[in-house]
Amino acid sequence: MAKELTPRSENYSQWYNDLVIKADLAENSAVRGCMVIKPYGYSIWEKMQAQLDLMFKETGHQNAYFPLFIPKSYLGREAEHVEGFAKECAVVTHSRLKMSDDGQLIVDPASKLEEELIVRPTSETIIWSTYKNWIHSYRDLPILCNQWANVVRWEMRTRLFLRTAEFLWQEGHTAHATREEAEAEARRMLGVYGDFAEKYMAVPVIRGVKSANERFAGALDTYTIEAMMQDGKALQAGTSHFLGQNFAKAFDVTFVNKDNQPEYVWATSWGVSTRLMGALIMTHSDDNGLVLPPMLAPYQVVIVPIYKNEEQRSQLAEKADRLVAELRDKGIRVVFDNNDTKKPGWKFAEYEMKGVPVRLALGMRDLENGTVEVARRDTLTKETREQQGIGDYVKTLLDEIQANIFKKAQAYRDAHIYEVDSYDEFKARIEDGGFFLCHWDGTTETEERIKEETKATIRCVPLQGDKTPGRCMVTGKPSAQRVIIAKAY
Amino acid sequence: MAKELTPRSENYSQWYNDLVIKADLAENSAVRGCMVIKPYGYSIWEKMQAQLDLMFKETGHQNAYFPLFIPKSYLGREAEHVEGFAKECAVVTHSRLKMSDDGQLIVDPASKLEEELIVRPTSETIIWSTYKNWIHSYRDLPILCNQWANVVRWEMRTRLFLRTAEFLWQEGHTAHATREEAEAEARRMLGVYGDFAEKYMAVPVIRGVKSANERFAGALDTYTIEAMMQDGKALQAGTSHFLGQNFAKAFDVTFVNKDNQPEYVWATSWGVSTRLMGALIMTHSDDNGLVLPPMLAPYQVVIVPIYKNEEQRSQLAEKADRLVAELRDKGIRVVFDNNDTKKPGWKFAEYEMKGVPVRLALGMRDLENGTVEVARRDTLTKETREQQGIGDYVKTLLDEIQANIFKKAQAYRDAHIYEVDSYDEFKARIEDGGFFLCHWDGTTETEERIKEETKATIRCVPLQGDKTPGRCMVTGKPSAQRVIIAKAY
Repeated sequence: MAKELTPRSENYSQWYNDLVIKADLAENSAVRGCMVIKPYGYSIWEKMQAQLDLMFKETGHQNAYFPLFIPKSYLGREAEHVEGFAKECAVVTHSRLKMSDDGQLIVDPASKLEEELIVRPTSETIIWSTYKNWIHSYRDLPILCNQWANVVRWEMRTRLFLRTAEFLWQEGHTAHATREEAEAEARRMLGVYGDFAEKYMAVPVIRGVKSANERFAGALDTYTIEAMMQDGKALQAGTSHFLGQNFAKAFDVTFVNKDNQPEYVWATSWGVSTRLMGALIMTHSDDNGLVLPPMLAPYQVVIVPIYKNEEQRSQLAEKADRLVAELRDKGIRVVFDNNDTKKPGWKFAEYEMKGVPVRLALGMRDLENGTVEVARRDTLTKETREQQGIGDYVKTLLDEIQANIFKKAQAYRDAHIYEVDSYDEFKARIEDGGFFLCHWDGTTETEERIKEETKATIRCVPLQGDKTPGRCMVTGKPSAQRVIIAKAY
Repeated sequence: MAKELTPRSENYSQWYNDLVIKADLAENSAVRGCMVIKPYGYSIWEKMQAQLDLMFKETGHQNAYFPLFIPKSYLGREAEHVEGFAKECAVVTHSRLKMSDDGQLIVDPASKLEEELIVRPTSETIIWSTYKNWIHSYRDLPILCNQWANVVRWEMRTRLFLRTAEFLWQEGHTAHATREEAEAEARRMLGVYGDFAEKYMAVPVIRGVKSANERFAGALDTYTIEAMMQDGKALQAGTSHFLGQNFAKAFDVTFVNKDNQPEYVWATSWGVSTRLMGALIMTHSDDNGLVLPPMLAPYQVVIVPIYKNEEQRSQLAEKADRLVAELRDKGIRVVFDNNDTKKPGWKFAEYEMKGVPVRLALGMRDLENGTVEVARRDTLTKETREQQGIGDYVKTLLDEIQANIFKKAQAYRDAHIYEVDSYDEFKARIEDGGFFLCHWDGTTETEERIKEETKATIRCVPLQGDKTPGRCMVTGKPSAQRVIIAKAY
């Protein structure tokens, strides 16, 4: 086959890059660090968006849209925030091009802006400057807004989907009258992300809270869902921030409470991005290509005819059309690939590369016998089934595949979570990947030492599971509970 | 009422601005020329997006995503294109901020980019630079991509939805093997836009082709749908461009045809934007506020209870909940406003302002009689109906409202289209608004003279209707057919 991937065992990173290109998901663009999301990749992202959007609306959120540009001075209003984003941002300084005297297209110096604009790396500042006008009384609260948007962070080392200068995401920004309500919202949205990752992406995640060091710039608490990739590395798949009153104070957003007293508003923000595509790919896929959970697959089933001549082709097409109708009737997304310029073997490999969960192959023998060959992408197994009742069979099979790839990912992850109490042992084993459940004394100093010496980071303090106190594996000082330490994307 | 609009008869432009703010559709942001689309406004835009997206997919298009940034040199590759967009664009020149020695947040001069990046005003250049890698043979064609995105044009005089520095839109970009196929695609998408405007927005439009002067920068032909606002001005609501081989030549995109010969690829592009919100508002709304076509209304029906005490309130709520269930069962989007802090009169005015097509009011008398008061937003009429069968009744009523507002807009438009053959008469009447069907000699010279002397522009050469030749009203030279001339937004 022309389209072969570097095997995972040989070079996991190269395997990922190969797969993203060869499954037609995305590619690098002419603009440094920016990607082109190709139609097949985008159609998976659309499925994610649709489901997340539904879940946001079911939890009472509404979509809105705020400006792409942020005045430079806004970014500077919250000290930690600007510290976090100033070093990697796209700055707009002029508003016009012109032809120079020697016929070159140049930036017109006369069009210099009075104040530079930053292409949003995240929208807390522009949104809280807007909320100031929306919020006066407790009756105006809560505000539960989300926006689907592009953002730019000038990353120096980029990788398709995982880390790009421009990416697509959603960012929720909510405003509340009380601390309790805002904290509950931040946790609720973490729950939404966790459910989405596990039920739809079939990616098991650990829900936790970040250490101070790893918090969002400007947050009091950052909640996270952490997934394990097949190389044992962690991928932060979504975060939800309790922002306290930091942005309300920075933009002077107060409300009059029920006792007629002014108070600063409490805030959350939360987001997931096209990075989820990276998580999806790296959790399930194999050396043959992408493996998609049926719930997010643009096509859940492909039907491939196997014929020797036009007459056979037309006989098979007739039967295939009836199968398509039956499957669509069951709500299954199915495509019949009757393209005559490609051979069946080529098609088999192509749909394997693209992760279509179920392939039905139909030959002349099948016509005679009333059968069809059913191939599963997740297990790469094949069986011959009666055409009779194939719709119901495939529907059940898709559910089974969805459950199976989750179970498989969970088993892999659970087999690579280690409780380690000795720092020497940790250092010896961290190179092999996996999540390490270790005691940590809670100090930034120790956290930074671990990072410096091993390049691993504290991924989160898990919200569920063992809460037994202990002693820090590095310093021996008291530890409230084990935390997850891993190398991360 | 607190929320009154300037009457249209007094100041149409102020009426529009008032309405956009008071119906909670959008507002100006702190960033010059950029708007905030508020949740209610955005939910209408989402309905538009969903329907358009469906229509694009039904005509074989797929979504994709291309970078926000365009290298300056790319914009310069197509001469007319750069001429059209260079004068109003946001230019990114740096990638970092830093603190100056005196503690100011400044642009870090060391982060100057080698080549400036333009925030996309439209994406032909970045997309055709990408298509170069996607297209090799006739087998790779056609490519039928669309993207939903934000774009920036540095407009000096902005108005919410109608003309803003940043706006949201979709842009289709297709690549074809033949001129005929590309021209057919450009016309097909004009048809999709026309159908969408008329069937869903209930906005009657004239389908036509632009004069050379009004063409998209880089196109061979620009097709347009032109709508008439209530002040008789034209609003260009969507355009579809036949780009010929201009961008293929600029980016050297060739394919090998069936005869094994290289050829340049043929292109189209087409787009509609949040400007459609302006067209929607200005076509149907009145001095009480927004009037929405039921097909695009976030809520099609609101139920308002009228009570004197908690006991009555709870009795009415029980009945209202049953009505909500019945209406939802018919696929109707309904909301029950049981908010106790607002009086019924306030709610009536509020939902009128927001254009909810049908209001059901429910009082104690209605409970006794098994009735409900039904009010139509479009005609502002009320009637008392039996609760029995109300679901079916409202369903039919929504269809009737959809048809009625289209008919009303069409009647208004048709009554303001004038055939005029004398330039003096034209000049005398153009100030009063309307579409003028006039003969024009086809020259840019005459077109510019009309524009200079009257500020009216040739909106389009209509594709349908009277094709009788005649004599130009300005020069007396031969004219192939009448064209539409109007003042425009």
